[in-house]
Amino acid sequence: MIVVLKPGVPEEKRDRLIEWLQSMGMKIHLSVGEYQTIIGLIGDSSNIDVDLIESLDIVDSVKVVTETFKQVNRKFHPDDSIIEVGDVKVGGGNFCLIAGPCSVENESQIVEVAKAVKAAGANMLRGGAFKPRTSPYDFQGLRGEGLELLKIARAETGLPIVTELMSATDIPLFEDVDVIQVGARNMQNFDLLKELGSVKKPILLKRGLANTLKELLMSAEYIMASGNENVILCERGIRTYSDYLRNTLDLAAVPMLHELTHLPVIVDPSHATGIARMVPPMALAAAACGADGIMIEVHNDPQHALCDGAQSLRPEVYADLVKKINAVREVVK
Amino acid sequence: MIVVLKPGVPEEKRDRLIEWLQSMGMKIHLSVGEYQTIIGLIGDSSNIDVDLIESLDIVDSVKVVTETFKQVNRKFHPDDSIIEVGDVKVGGGNFCLIAGPCSVENESQIVEVAKAVKAAGANMLRGGAFKPRTSPYDFQGLRGEGLELLKIARAETGLPIVTELMSATDIPLFEDVDVIQVGARNMQNFDLLKELGSVKKPILLKRGLANTLKELLMSAEYIMASGNENVILCERGIRTYSDYLRNTLDLAAVPMLHELTHLPVIVDPSHATGIARMVPPMALAAAACGADGIMIEVHNDPQHALCDGAQSLRPEVYADLVKKINAVREVVK
Amino acid sequence: MIVVLKPGVPEEKRDRLIEWLQSMGMKIHLSVGEYQTIIGLIGDSSNIDVDLIESLDIVDSVKVVTETFKQVNRKFHPDDSIIEVGDVKVGGGNFCLIAGPCSVENESQIVEVAKAVKAAGANMLRGGAFKPRTSPYDFQGLRGEGLELLKIARAETGLPIVTELMSATDIPLFEDVDVIQVGARNMQNFDLLKELGSVKKPILLKRGLANTLKELLMSAEYIMASGNENVILCERGIRTYSDYLRNTLDLAAVPMLHELTHLPVIVDPSHATGIARMVPPMALAAAACGADGIMIEVHNDPQHALCDGAQSLRPEVYADLVKKINAVREVVK
Amino acid sequence: MIVVLKPGVPEEKRDRLIEWLQSMGMKIHLSVGEYQTIIGLIGDSSNIDVDLIESLDIVDSVKVVTETFKQVNRKFHPDDSIIEVGDVKVGGGNFCLIAGPCSVENESQIVEVAKAVKAAGANMLRGGAFKPRTSPYDFQGLRGEGLELLKIARAETGLPIVTELMSATDIPLFEDVDVIQVGARNMQNFDLLKELGSVKKPILLKRGLANTLKELLMSAEYIMASGNENVILCERGIRTYSDYLRNTLDLAAVPMLHELTHLPVIVDPSHATGIARMVPPMALAAAACGADGIMIEVHNDPQHALCDGAQSLRPEVYADLVKKINAVREVVK
Repeated sequence: MIVVLKPGVPEEKRDRLIEWLQSMGMKIHLSVGEYQTIIGLIGDSSNIDVDLIESLDIVDSVKVVTETFKQVNRKFHPDDSIIEVGDVKVGGGNFCLIAGPCSVENESQIVEVAKAVKAAGANMLRGGAFKPRTSPYDFQGLRGEGLELLKIARAETGLPIVTELMSATDIPLFEDVDVIQVGARNMQNFDLLKELGSVKKPILLKRGLANTLKELLMSAEYIMASGNENVILCERGIRTYSDYLRNTLDLAAVPMLHELTHLPVIVDPSHATGIARMVPPMALAAAACGADGIMIEVHNDPQHALCDGAQSLRPEVYADLVKKINAVREVVK
Repeated sequence: MIVVLKPGVPEEKRDRLIEWLQSMGMKIHLSVGEYQTIIGLIGDSSNIDVDLIESLDIVDSVKVVTETFKQVNRKFHPDDSIIEVGDVKVGGGNFCLIAGPCSVENESQIVEVAKAVKAAGANMLRGGAFKPRTSPYDFQGLRGEGLELLKIARAETGLPIVTELMSATDIPLFEDVDVIQVGARNMQNFDLLKELGSVKKPILLKRGLANTLKELLMSAEYIMASGNENVILCERGIRTYSDYLRNTLDLAAVPMLHELTHLPVIVDPSHATGIARMVPPMALAAAACGADGIMIEVHNDPQHALCDGAQSLRPEVYADLVKKINAVREVVK
Repeated sequence: MIVVLKPGVPEEKRDRLIEWLQSMGMKIHLSVGEYQTIIGLIGDSSNIDVDLIESLDIVDSVKVVTETFKQVNRKFHPDDSIIEVGDVKVGGGNFCLIAGPCSVENESQIVEVAKAVKAAGANMLRGGAFKPRTSPYDFQGLRGEGLELLKIARAETGLPIVTELMSATDIPLFEDVDVIQVGARNMQNFDLLKELGSVKKPILLKRGLANTLKELLMSAEYIMASGNENVILCERGIRTYSDYLRNTLDLAAVPMLHELTHLPVIVDPSHATGIARMVPPMALAAAACGADGIMIEVHNDPQHALCDGAQSLRPEVYADLVKKINAVREVVK
Repeated sequence: MIVVLKPGVPEEKRDRLIEWLQSMGMKIHLSVGEYQTIIGLIGDSSNIDVDLIESLDIVDSVKVVTETFKQVNRKFHPDDSIIEVGDVKVGGGNFCLIAGPCSVENESQIVEVAKAVKAAGANMLRGGAFKPRTSPYDFQGLRGEGLELLKIARAETGLPIVTELMSATDIPLFEDVDVIQVGARNMQNFDLLKELGSVKKPILLKRGLANTLKELLMSAEYIMASGNENVILCERGIRTYSDYLRNTLDLAAVPMLHELTHLPVIVDPSHATGIARMVPPMALAAAACGADGIMIEVHNDPQHALCDGAQSLRPEVYADLVKKINAVREVVK
C-alpha cells in the first residue's frame, strides 16, 4: 500500500501516522519529495482500513498495490479453470450452450423445450423454478415442484440442469440440481455466498445489476474462500441510463475478466437486452469476444405463438443461432 | 394499460392481439388514428406481462397507467404513516436522530457512544453487529454477541436500537431488537423481505446500490404485502461515475418519495459520502429538504484519535450538528 | 400524445386543461375510466411542451406516441442509407474499415501507417489533427498542418481521410477532407451540427459520453434537418461506474440503431476500451452483431516499441484482425 | 507518478521501461518488494501519457500523485476567490440569488419577471436568448433580440444579466452581458472554453450531463489557463438511471468542490429536477450544504396560469423561498 500525503503536512502529524502504521505491523518506506511525501507500506496490509486512511485530513490519496482477490486471481493461478458439470466441461476452451424457458410451467412444456434445445445443440438446460420478481404480486415460480419437473426433463434428455436459488434455506431442495444459479440481485447476499461454499457443486454467479468487475470477483472469492472452487461467472447486462434496451450488455467484461481470473465467463444476452430479436446478434458478439458459454431463453408454445416471452427465442431460431455461434467460434479460436 | 401499435400493422395481426388481450379478461378500447393505432385496456391488467407485449413486433410501446405499488402508495393512503419505535415516532412531522458506531466493538465502546449521542440529542442508537463486507477476509462483525452489547447500551440509555439483519435464518436473534435494518445489498433479497413481513417490528429499508425509487417502493410493498406495515425508507447514496465521493447522495429522492408514498423517509449521509467532513453539510441538506430523520455514524475513541472511522463523526461534532439540524428544521417546517 | 390524469381530479381543472390543449389546435379524445381519466390528443402536438404538461399537478403522466426524430427514422425511410465516400460505400451491406493513428505526428509516420493499414485491408484512413483534450496543458494536435499531412497520406495511398473537427470556425480548413468526424464531446454542440448541415460531405457522428440512442438520433436529425443527409453513426463506449475499462462499449446499440434508423452504424473499440489488447475481441464482437464498419487506432513506431499508444494496435496485429473480421462477417451476414 | 509492475516481470523488460522513462527526463526511484516492484517517478511528469504506461503489458497500475489542475486548485490558492459582477460579489461568503425565466419571450415578460425577482430578493437576472434544444424542430430562442430585451430589463431594475452563449462566433453579441453562461452540453467544448479565456467577464460554467468533478475543474482550468480568472461553477444535476426526476442533483459536489477549488460553486435546482414543486426543497438543501448561490427559474404569466413552465416558480413562491433560503444560511454559516 502506498500513502500519498498532502503538501505541507507538519512532520509531527506525519510521524504520528507512521507510528500508528508501524503499530499495525507494517514496515515503512518513506520518500520525501520536493512537492509530495509518499509512505510505502511493506508487509501484510490486509487488515488496514483503506477508507479510514484515505479520509485522514493529512492524506491526499491511497494506492492499494496488491489485489484483494486471491483465489480467483489469475496471477496466482495462471491456467484456466475447467468446471465439470456431469460430462460437460466449461472453460479452458470448452464451450457451453445453456438454454431453456424463463420459467418452468408444466411437464410437457419443460420436456418439450429440453428436447428442442438439445436437438439444436444445447448441452445444458435452464429453467426458473424460484423466480425473483420486483413485485410481490407477480408469479413467484413453481418452486419445489418446478425443480421436480426439471429433473424429469433431465431424465428424458440427459441435459444437466441449471436453476436459480434465492435463499440458503432452500439449499436442501437443490441437492440434485447440477448447477446452482445465484441471480444478479443476490450477487452481494454474502450469507448466501458463504453457504454455497459448503455445497460442492458448480455455482453460476451472475453479475449484479450495477456491480463492478472487482465486486463480482470478490463475490466469487466468497464462494471459493468458503470451500467451493466450482464457480462460473456470468455477464448479463448492467444498469445505465440507456434507453430502448433494458440493460447495457458489457461484453468487454469478457476479455477483461479472462485477464483477471482463471474462472470461466459466460454471457446471458436474453436478460441483458430483454428483446428476443436482439438476442441473436448479441449472442454472436459474445462468442466473437471469447465467452466460454452462452445462456439463452428458449420457449416452445405453438398454441400461443402470440405470447412469446419478450426475450425468448423459438426453438428453430435458436437452432439456427447455434450453428452461427459455432461458426464464429471457429473463426476466433 | 395503453398499447401503441407501429404504423402499418395489418388488421389481422392487430385483431389477433386484441383477441388474446380479451382472453386475458381485458375490455378493449380501440382508437384508430391517421398515423397511429392505440389499444386501451380496461380492467385488471396486473397479470399481463408488459415486457412481453412491448416486445411484440407489431407494438411500438406500452404505457402502464396504474402504478404497481399499492399499499405504499400515497394515492390510496393520503396521510403520512407514523412508525412507532418505543416512545419515538418517525414520520408525520416527527423527526428521528439515529446515531452510533459503524460496528459494535465492545461493551465500553457501545455504551460510551450511546451515552454521548443521547446527550447530543439522538433518540435512537445504531450499531452494526452483522456486517456486510465486500471481501470475505474482512471483519464480519461480532454477530450475536454484538446484539447483546447493543441491548446493554439500550438498558443504560433507554435508546431504542437499530441494527442490520443479513439473513432470514438470524431473525430469531433479532426478537428483542427495536428496528431491523435491511442493507442496500439486500434491498432486492425478496425472500428476506417476505420473511420480514411476518415480523411485526419496524423495518428500516435502505435503497439499493443502483435502484430506482420505484424498485425501492416495490421492496417496501413486499414487506407490507407480507403483513408488516412498519417500514421506514432510507436514502443512502447511489452508484454513479462520480469521482472523489463514494456514492452520489440523491437528496431529491426525499421530496419525491414523500409525494409517492406515505412512509417516512430518512437519510444516511455517512455511507453516502464515506468522508466524515462531508457528513455535516449533507445532514443539514437532508434536514432542509424535508427528511423525517437522519442516521449518522458516531465513534468515540479518545486513545486512537488517529484511526477515526473514515466516515464517523466525533461526539462533539455530532452534538454541534444536531443543534444546527434542529435549527434548519425550524426554518423549513 | 396521451395525458393520464391523477385520480380524483376535479372536473373544472380537467376542463381547463382540455380547453388549453384545444387552444393549441389539438382535437381531444376523452376517456373517463373508473380509476383513471385519459385525454388523447389528435393532431400535430410537436409544439406542445411535454415536460410542462407532465409537471402539472393534476397530471399523472404523459405518453408521447409519435417519435420526435423524422428524417433519421427508419419508419419513414425503410431502406438502408448508403453513404458514399469516394469509391467507398458505407451501409446497406457495405462494410468500412477505418484505421490510423490517434494523432497525426509527422509525414513519415502518417504515410507509413496509411500504407500499412491499406495493405492490411483498411479502406479509409483516420488520424487526429485537432485533438479534444481534457487538460489545456496536453498536446492539442498539429491542427492545420496535420490536415495537410493527412492529404499527403491520401495522395500516397488513395485512402479517403477521416478526421475530427472541433469548431465551426475551422470548417473552411476541412474542405478537402473526405469525412468530418464530430467527437463525443461535441455530439450536442447544436450550433456545430447546424453548420455541418450546410457542408455536403459525410459526417461521422460519435455518440456522446453519456447520451442515449434517442439523443444520438436527434443530433443526426440536426445535421439532416440542416440539409446534409450523409451521416454515419458511431458507438464508442459510454460512461458507467465500470472499473478496469475506460468506457462501457454498448454493442447492443448496433442492432437497436439499425432498427430505429436507416443510417449506417460503425463501432470504435479503441476509444471504448482504451487498451490495445481488448481491441481485437471487441472488434470481432462488433462485426458479429452487425456493425457497418469498424474504426481502429493503429500506430507504426518500430524504434519506440515501448511507447505503444495505450489503445493502438501494431500493423501486423491489425492485419491479422482484419482477416478474422472478414471471416466473422461471412458467418453472420 | 508511481508505476506498479505486475509480479514476475523480467528484469530486462523492467529496465527498458526505466530507460525510456529516464529518456523523458524523469528521475527514477526503484523499490523492489517481495511481491511487487514499484517505480517512483520524480520530476515533471506532465508530458508523460498515463494511459500509455497503464496499458503496457508489464504494468499493473499507475498512480498519479500530483493533480492535473493547477490554477483552479485550492492547494495553490487557499483563499476563496470572489467574483465581482457589477456590485454583486459571489464567493468568499457572498451569496448570489439568480432568477428569471427559462426563455426571454418579449419585453413585458422579461421586465415584469425582473421586477418581481428583484422585489423577492434576487440580485441577478437570468434568461435564455440562445437555447440549446435536443430537437432541431424546437424553439431555439430569440437570440440577438433576446439579449436586447435582457438589457432593457437590466436598465429597468439594475440587476446584472446572466445568459447562455452557445458558439464562439456569437461572443461579440455578448459584449454587454454581465455573466456568460456555458451550458452543460458545452462543458467540454474546448475551443469555446479557450475563446472565453480572452473574454474578461465572469463565466458561469455548468457541470456537464455526466461529467466528473475533475473534468469540471479541468474545464475551468481551460478558461483560467487562457487568461480569464472569473469562473463560477454550477452543479445542475447529473445523468443516472434515476426514475421520476430528470437528473440526479449531486449536492455533495458542493462541499467537495469547495475543498478542491477556490472558485465559487452555485446550484441550479430547476434544471436538476425539472419539476417546480421539487425546486424549493432542493434550493433549501443547496443553501444548507454551503452553496455560494442558487439559480432558479421564475416565470410570470398571470393570464396563462395553466402553462407554467414545468420547472419554473411563480414569483410569490420564489419570494417565500428566498426568505427561507436566507434563514437557512443564517443557521449554517
